[in-house]
Amino acid sequence: MMKLDNYEELLGTLLEKLAETNQTQTAATSEPRRIPVGISNRHIHLSQKDVEKLFGYDYQLTKLKDLSQPGQFACKETVMICGPKGAIEKVRILGPVRKQTQVEILQSDSFKLGVKAPLRLSGDLTGAGSITLIGPKGSAEIIEGVIVAKRHIHMLPNEAIQFGVYDGESVTIELPGERGGSLANVIIRAVENSGLECHIDTEEANALGLTPNTEIVIKKNNR
Amino acid sequence: MMKLDNYEELLGTLLEKLAETNQTQTAATSEPRRIPVGISNRHIHLSQKDVEKLFGYDYQLTKLKDLSQPGQFACKETVMICGPKGAIEKVRILGPVRKQTQVEILQSDSFKLGVKAPLRLSGDLTGAGSITLIGPKGSAEIIEGVIVAKRHIHMLPNEAIQFGVYDGESVTIELPGERGGSLANVIIRAVENSGLECHIDTEEANALGLTPNTEIVIKKNNR
Repeated sequence: MMKLDNYEELLGTLLEKLAETNQTQTAATSEPRRIPVGISNRHIHLSQKDVEKLFGYDYQLTKLKDLSQPGQFACKETVMICGPKGAIEKVRILGPVRKQTQVEILQSDSFKLGVKAPLRLSGDLTGAGSITLIGPKGSAEIIEGVIVAKRHIHMLPNEAIQFGVYDGESVTIELPGERGGSLANVIIRAVENSGLECHIDTEEANALGLTPNTEIVIKKNNR
Repeated sequence: MMKLDNYEELLGTLLEKLAETNQTQTAATSEPRRIPVGISNRHIHLSQKDVEKLFGYDYQLTKLKDLSQPGQFACKETVMICGPKGAIEKVRILGPVRKQTQVEILQSDSFKLGVKAPLRLSGDLTGAGSITLIGPKGSAEIIEGVIVAKRHIHMLPNEAIQFGVYDGESVTIELPGERGGSLANVIIRAVENSGLECHIDTEEANALGLTPNTEIVIKKNNR
């Protein structure tokens, strides 16, 4: 039997070696890069034509604060949105104006308002729902413009290369925490002039227990 | 080189064998058993003392319809719930009465009302939030009773054995569909007199695109 007078020294050496090994492994596997989360409540993108219907001739939207995506901003202006079953007041308008008005609501809003709202990426409005907007100077009937936003991740094309994903790809993201889990079918939007951010809505954030400080990781590609 | 005059016959035999093999595999892996989903909106369980504060002396709750869990029912009665930042009208009461009043709200409600609502299993009310209930005959101040319900799966003890899980275990569930994904930390509640059902709230259902007809599967244990 080996003599263990110096077992404390031996133990120390072993623990040191173990720590070194662990460090090497951590460096080798390299934690996946974390992506900040942007949580969107219901909001509206207006065409200039609809801005004028709601706020008056030649009206210009007023910037309240910049958003994370370059050039995008929240406006001082809000309007009421009305469907056959109900209305929601003070829905925020985001700028700048777009070619076509787009109303992004929560799934629960679609029940409350009684309007159809297919799950769509921004800009994909063929067959989208109808709604009426009420502003201080008039109303605007939106025939095809109501959607629930499909979750997506904004990034630069060179960031997409780093993440090993491509523009338009559908990935799964992993969310930490007591109410965490994973969300499938998150679309990569990799274009120039983007800020790295995963966009989900308030229902998704609440259901998964997320806060504005949560960061997510891309778990796997759905290839 | 082999003569392939009878290649069609050969191909037929091969395809038959392949079909047989596939059938055997499917039987062997046996699809995991699906579990129906029960979607809960905000609701209240009242003590008889609070029933009488809100509806009057000796008042008895009126059954509107039975719920999936044996003995549980939705009541005709609703009350308003009020916090420092807002109020929500017509919140449904569920029966029968319990020892302690418990108010289960959505995460978004807790922001709207300005009340604390920790994520908890039913009955675990130490440190739960405060709220005021307003009924037709009076109000009740609930000091410790507001929670966001922690998602869970009701099943019989013998069903738990079939699923390979145990009462109190935390599992992950997998949800199908375009807005699907997985939810971690779902608690197994395996007691007698249960109906097999996975309980989530409306925000979780909306975020994951679920309907009352969706069925989920237990994906893995978090052991």
